[in-house]
Amino acid sequence: MSTASDRGPRHAAPQPAVAYRRLSVSQRRSQLIEAALGLFAHRAPEDVSLDDVAAAAAVSRPLVYRYFPGGKQQLYEAALRSAADELELCFRQPQHGPLTHRLTRALDSYLGFVDEHDAGFKALLQGGSVVQTSRTTAIVDEVRRSAAEQILLHIGVPRPGRRLLTMIRTWITAVEGASLIWLDEGKQPPLSELRGWLVDHFVALLVATAAGDEECGRVLRRAVELETADGPAGDLVRRVAPLLHDAGHLLGED
Amino acid sequence: MSTASDRGPRHAAPQPAVAYRRLSVSQRRSQLIEAALGLFAHRAPEDVSLDDVAAAAAVSRPLVYRYFPGGKQQLYEAALRSAADELELCFRQPQHGPLTHRLTRALDSYLGFVDEHDAGFKALLQGGSVVQTSRTTAIVDEVRRSAAEQILLHIGVPRPGRRLLTMIRTWITAVEGASLIWLDEGKQPPLSELRGWLVDHFVALLVATAAGDEECGRVLRRAVELETADGPAGDLVRRVAPLLHDAGHLLGED
Repeated sequence: MSTASDRGPRHAAPQPAVAYRRLSVSQRRSQLIEAALGLFAHRAPEDVSLDDVAAAAAVSRPLVYRYFPGGKQQLYEAALRSAADELELCFRQPQHGPLTHRLTRALDSYLGFVDEHDAGFKALLQGGSVVQTSRTTAIVDEVRRSAAEQILLHIGVPRPGRRLLTMIRTWITAVEGASLIWLDEGKQPPLSELRGWLVDHFVALLVATAAGDEECGRVLRRAVELETADGPAGDLVRRVAPLLHDAGHLLGED
Repeated sequence: MSTASDRGPRHAAPQPAVAYRRLSVSQRRSQLIEAALGLFAHRAPEDVSLDDVAAAAAVSRPLVYRYFPGGKQQLYEAALRSAADELELCFRQPQHGPLTHRLTRALDSYLGFVDEHDAGFKALLQGGSVVQTSRTTAIVDEVRRSAAEQILLHIGVPRPGRRLLTMIRTWITAVEGASLIWLDEGKQPPLSELRGWLVDHFVALLVATAAGDEECGRVLRRAVELETADGPAGDLVRRVAPLLHDAGHLLGED
């Protein structure tokens, strides 16, 4: 797609294609955001300069400024917006099959994102970053809200009561927290183990919440019907059963 | 303790005692921090000025600056340090009796703090606040670390494996998240209900984690021995038992 005029009059020899590709305004914008996201993913925001972004996109610094006159902060927020769109897709899974299977797919996708954008995820959520503003906080909150909405669609309760909604929002907080701990621990244990534990966490929390709330009880019963012995729920129930042998005295049956 | 020279030459009539009390340097410092904490507890940091702090402590603005030359940021961090010391005490409960009783007391204390310092707690933990720095983040992290250490002392495992430590740290994240949600919801449900649910959450998460980790299994068995039918664990077990009647097919016994 490069043309002679695109290359500019001073260059006779062919140059790296990316530097001189003619892009539409929205393509160029996307390209710059993509380059910024790549940098912000693996470095703290304070360690990324506009020169770095220009170099990564193989364009000049003034060009970056033409698209993002607000400089680094504006570029950071645009990159965050793009990352948020990607994160919001994680919990949009096909709405059929056992709930634990859907959560497994959603978490694989979410944790894959965390793995890919490790430093950026940490800088954004751990607080104290220079680029954090009420706008970035709002974007992060929107991701959380969207994840909660998707889970509510999965369990077929678009308008939940307070307990159910608090349970889901609290679990989402726990997923974020566990992701940060996982990054702190040098990404140990393997991602699949963390994901399995977070699905178990959801199930355990739903059971504990259902113990005191009728709506959660109905959600649990409907979910259990679709679960199978060879899936994550069956696996959890079989591993938990022996642990409860010693708890007979808690039933108060003498 | 007020003296004539303390009152200043222009005042003949007695003035409010607090304005003219002669305090030692450390007493004055504590008084200013206390006044600041009271203000930061109920307003966003951007809505608190040094004049407000001076007025609340009934001193002059220059006096506040003499003690805190770094101005509002320094005062905020000192107030946060003081709040952190208070929060760290929450999980230091007597180390005897059932674990769920100890967690109940710790959470009563923690959630009481959240209730008392609602706006400040929110501003600090929700991110995007102008006063957030890597130093404030470090103070918050220290509170979390201290809470985890105290819980480890309660369960008698000072040097935990990764799964157990991750479980405890994740639960602490969930407690913070649930506290913020509780503030968002206008402090509903009543504090005691939230506290009971968070204790249930701990128990459920310990059971789910014990299902895949020997160390957590040992912790669970030791904890269960001390629990009683009339305590929170007994209550939870009896409420959960009927929910599991429909889950027979998950055991894979045909």
